[in-house]
Amino acid sequence: MKQVAIGIDIGGTNTVLGLVDQNGNVLAKDYFSTSEYNDITEYTNKLSGNINNLLERLYQTEVNLHIIGIGIGAPNANYYSGTIEHAPNLSFKGVIPFVSLLKEKFPYIQTITLTNDANATAIGEMMFGGAIDMRNFVMYTLGTGVGSGLVVNGNLVYGQDGFAGECGHTMLIPNGRLCGCGAKGHLEAYCSATGMKRTAFELLAQYNDTKSLLTGYSYNELTAKNICEAALKGDEIALEVFNSTGKWLGQALADTVHHFSPEAIFLFGGPMAAGNLLLRPTIESMEDHLLTVYKNKIKVLPSKLVSGDAAIVGASALVWKNQQNKTSSLSK
Amino acid sequence: MKQVAIGIDIGGTNTVLGLVDQNGNVLAKDYFSTSEYNDITEYTNKLSGNINNLLERLYQTEVNLHIIGIGIGAPNANYYSGTIEHAPNLSFKGVIPFVSLLKEKFPYIQTITLTNDANATAIGEMMFGGAIDMRNFVMYTLGTGVGSGLVVNGNLVYGQDGFAGECGHTMLIPNGRLCGCGAKGHLEAYCSATGMKRTAFELLAQYNDTKSLLTGYSYNELTAKNICEAALKGDEIALEVFNSTGKWLGQALADTVHHFSPEAIFLFGGPMAAGNLLLRPTIESMEDHLLTVYKNKIKVLPSKLVSGDAAIVGASALVWKNQQNKTSSLSK
Repeated sequence: MKQVAIGIDIGGTNTVLGLVDQNGNVLAKDYFSTSEYNDITEYTNKLSGNINNLLERLYQTEVNLHIIGIGIGAPNANYYSGTIEHAPNLSFKGVIPFVSLLKEKFPYIQTITLTNDANATAIGEMMFGGAIDMRNFVMYTLGTGVGSGLVVNGNLVYGQDGFAGECGHTMLIPNGRLCGCGAKGHLEAYCSATGMKRTAFELLAQYNDTKSLLTGYSYNELTAKNICEAALKGDEIALEVFNSTGKWLGQALADTVHHFSPEAIFLFGGPMAAGNLLLRPTIESMEDHLLTVYKNKIKVLPSKLVSGDAAIVGASALVWKNQQNKTSSLSK
Repeated sequence: MKQVAIGIDIGGTNTVLGLVDQNGNVLAKDYFSTSEYNDITEYTNKLSGNINNLLERLYQTEVNLHIIGIGIGAPNANYYSGTIEHAPNLSFKGVIPFVSLLKEKFPYIQTITLTNDANATAIGEMMFGGAIDMRNFVMYTLGTGVGSGLVVNGNLVYGQDGFAGECGHTMLIPNGRLCGCGAKGHLEAYCSATGMKRTAFELLAQYNDTKSLLTGYSYNELTAKNICEAALKGDEIALEVFNSTGKWLGQALADTVHHFSPEAIFLFGGPMAAGNLLLRPTIESMEDHLLTVYKNKIKVLPSKLVSGDAAIVGASALVWKNQQNKTSSLSK
């Protein structure tokens, strides 16, 4: 019998879903626009329709299929209650009992579980990526925001309320840049992809470098990808964006190390396409900020999850991890 | 048969030791000067002599005594390796295999275990204090430095190397005050008892308030206790020291919440004698810095450990916790 988990990643723009086997291979996948659906009932109808389509597709080649569960990554998702709560980037407002709604659609699937997208990525890294043998590590995701997932003693840290791991909102520079959450100076305002764009504009203003490749972009147009491409061509402003981002990120990583002393910190997301342009200054700055006892022993690594499938694989890993825990507690 | 654990707290100035029962009661205790001993062999001879004296004292009234183990709290202590490593405030330099040395003295005692003093206090709080029913909480100790111990899912976080929980060295104000570790701007430089003295001197310099009760103290003389006494008499500079300390501490606590989302944060140490003078601005500032999802649900509480015995009780709790874990894994 072939065991399969369903992985779903709910983003503000798109929802991606896929069927994932126990080795983290995506057997079938699909996506649709999240933002087209303002009504949660219509959205769950669409989602369950697409899941059924995927399953039918796979049943055509695999008759003996066992669906072991559905894992969902979503912003402001609560693992304990199975709810999505006041997610600013989703059109569904208030507290959505998402797991319950999906259980109504799939009563025959025993495990349906939900967590935030960065936590799902962390579990994906532990099940299928670079953290397979690690029991203490941290995942930082650099995207529109900065997310994080923390693993201690082999288990994700959910905290007392299911909301642990919001390291993007730790203080980087008191009274600094306005963060999307309304506060000032948070890490996310500096080291997200959006933060990098803000840094580029700050540097253009500061140096008036009219030769920079970044001078041709409006604020709406400029992306972290443009900055990366310019940096790879040797553009000084773009290179300085990566240096500053790394300097700030390294400071934040050091604070996380001083809490947890993890074996490694993984970095995931678009800006990581720049490789050492971001990694090198991040590691240098982290080491500068570490107590002696931690120096030269914490690895900072790019995520090993394949970026296109990471969201699906991460979400599905919630289910695989759950099954692994069951098996290991049975064997005790 | 009466079960007893030996608790030892090794401080830079004094070593305190005691015999503690399973309810956290100190049955007998003793102390001696740590700083008089530069040689680790002489120190362990003195320590084991004092332990034996305590045991003999107790044997006089309790013939049927079972020593279940020795727990030790010490600066720069490593739980995994049982070593004390490069502790700046101890006269024993380098890496001291402390648990091994003590096992030579007490080969008949099965469990000898060591961790840093803030971790020991956290376990003490969990076994005998205000965190008895909590599975996710954080302990901050405010003394000469700022220490911390983190409990996730009912277990202390030791990290990959046994050194987790150095939150006193997270960044509070980039390029701020010089910290004892040589870096700048760490929490410890602001919110330890020493940090409060520094704040008092900064405020005296800023306001030139010649009526302040703190104007009569030299830098060497002034203590957090003096500041507390002056604040309780309404001294404005002293009150402002507590307000500033709370404002800074609250910012740091919020960062810790954004990592862990604990049920509670406990505060321990001399400055807590000031009660609400410190608690109120700390809670206000923490709430100001929290994401909406965490607001009004994280408790900030004074430690329930009795301050005179807390070090001994905390160290002994290492052993009691160990025994609790064994019992619970046997009953599975």
